[in-house]
Amino acid sequence: MMSDTESLHIPSYQDMLDAHERIRPHIRCTPVRSSDYLNELAGCQLVFKCENFQEPGAFKVRGATNAVFGLSDEQAKAGVATHSSGNHASCLSYAAMLRGIPCNVVMPRTAPQAKKDTVRRYGGKITECEPSTSSREETFARVQAETGGDFVHPYNDPRVIAGQGTCSKELIEQTDGLDMVVAPIGGGGMISGTCLTLSTLAPETKVIAAEPEQADDAYRSFKAGHIIADDAPKTVADGLLVPLKDLTWHFVRNHVSDIFTASDPEIIEAMKLTWKHLRVVMEPSSAVPLATILKNKDYFKGKRVGVIITGGNVDLDKLPWMQG
Amino acid sequence: MMSDTESLHIPSYQDMLDAHERIRPHIRCTPVRSSDYLNELAGCQLVFKCENFQEPGAFKVRGATNAVFGLSDEQAKAGVATHSSGNHASCLSYAAMLRGIPCNVVMPRTAPQAKKDTVRRYGGKITECEPSTSSREETFARVQAETGGDFVHPYNDPRVIAGQGTCSKELIEQTDGLDMVVAPIGGGGMISGTCLTLSTLAPETKVIAAEPEQADDAYRSFKAGHIIADDAPKTVADGLLVPLKDLTWHFVRNHVSDIFTASDPEIIEAMKLTWKHLRVVMEPSSAVPLATILKNKDYFKGKRVGVIITGGNVDLDKLPWMQG
Repeated sequence: MMSDTESLHIPSYQDMLDAHERIRPHIRCTPVRSSDYLNELAGCQLVFKCENFQEPGAFKVRGATNAVFGLSDEQAKAGVATHSSGNHASCLSYAAMLRGIPCNVVMPRTAPQAKKDTVRRYGGKITECEPSTSSREETFARVQAETGGDFVHPYNDPRVIAGQGTCSKELIEQTDGLDMVVAPIGGGGMISGTCLTLSTLAPETKVIAAEPEQADDAYRSFKAGHIIADDAPKTVADGLLVPLKDLTWHFVRNHVSDIFTASDPEIIEAMKLTWKHLRVVMEPSSAVPLATILKNKDYFKGKRVGVIITGGNVDLDKLPWMQG
Repeated sequence: MMSDTESLHIPSYQDMLDAHERIRPHIRCTPVRSSDYLNELAGCQLVFKCENFQEPGAFKVRGATNAVFGLSDEQAKAGVATHSSGNHASCLSYAAMLRGIPCNVVMPRTAPQAKKDTVRRYGGKITECEPSTSSREETFARVQAETGGDFVHPYNDPRVIAGQGTCSKELIEQTDGLDMVVAPIGGGGMISGTCLTLSTLAPETKVIAAEPEQADDAYRSFKAGHIIADDAPKTVADGLLVPLKDLTWHFVRNHVSDIFTASDPEIIEAMKLTWKHLRVVMEPSSAVPLATILKNKDYFKGKRVGVIITGGNVDLDKLPWMQG
């Protein structure tokens, strides 16, 4: 096991504490919310951490601001760069805007117009690529060579994981103790940050990952004991399509207690329940935890369960229950 | 002027303070939220008070719990009764459930099934009437005679107005001072409570009412100097169809600084903007304030503006921008 990880830069608990001091002026300490109705339905005490209430609408602003504000003035001049078609792209643009440095984003030309608009609203510069891994890698290499921007990976970056870990630090401070925290898993950035923080701050609190059945590569990796990456998973939870990488796999395999999955119809039903009873706008990806909780009621029965609502950026004209 | 009001029981500031002590264990001190994006768009500092986050999803739980928990044990035995097809019906049922007393609600048989379901979920007993004023009054008189329940009017009741006033007390405590507070106006319960509280607690803070153009009876009453009641207004803001009554008219005419109106398309646009950038689920009625602010930017320019998000109960399968 050591041989796999000794070359990795695993962020430490102190890195997370430093991150929190660094990003505090730039992010919101998001509120927690509960619903008596959902508690009754689930048979446990649910505390939802509303990261959808961050200004750019996602927890990813934590890791992004930690990376951006951790750069030396010298490094910062060339700005940052990334490839992402989701919340990381807009959150990194937002963080770069706050520091007043350039942000270059490589996005597939097929990405939704709304996502491109958000990146541009925050001053991010988009370079389009074809929707293939080879085109993305080629294009990104070129952009990075031209700009010299610091590469901030969406999740496989110790600065990003340390930043995401600040979320569950706040969550623990906002509650009287939790038996478990459930968060969605895609690439594993939020889950890794949660493991990083809770394994020191609240080691009695289990970390549970929730994944779409139709993109269950983390579940299968967890069972198999090594990373399994899917080619092109397809699920309504479009923030959770990417595979684990070495850093996030380190946290998943060492600190996650269980991974549960839910089907797309179950995810959509949980999304509607949250919109209706918690009255917050959240993405399909953020509904996966509640979907898995409702599907495994015996496991969660009577427990105090923290749930991370990871993001709230949806196309209001194309809600999943309005289609088909 | 005195002759109009001396027969009314106008609630006092002390009534509002008493209401807050009475209802505090039964309601939530709802959070306030802001969006840099909406601030920039509006050209002022907006602080949204999220009454949609009350457990039954509307500010009306404040007045309802004040009425229900203010009853003597003797009075409480017969329970409460009201006629309403909206949030007051479910909030009064909710309050009665908390105290463990009966709640009888007269609703038109044409009311949406979802509203009936909510009332029944909270243990309210529904008696259906025809959708006409005469049938409603007849049916309600019969129900009240049979049950002896205490009539809690949706807004023209001093206990209800004192309860609603606790909302802006919290809002003032949660901010560093506001130049104005904008709330929707239908029957005027929330606006009256806001006037009651701010005229003593923050007399420098103006109270502005926001009304749908297509149900602008309060606006016309305000201009005319006497109550004008419309017969059957029709607007997407379906919580704002009812007319002012003597008690609420007292507050409107004496303490409201201005009433602004917005069209249905403007209301729907403001609703989408709030869902998208504040990421909260709110009713069309709750979007009227932002719609009027965006329409009158010069008036609000640079001001610190509190906005009451009055409720969050919507039919997610029939969102107004999905129709037509």
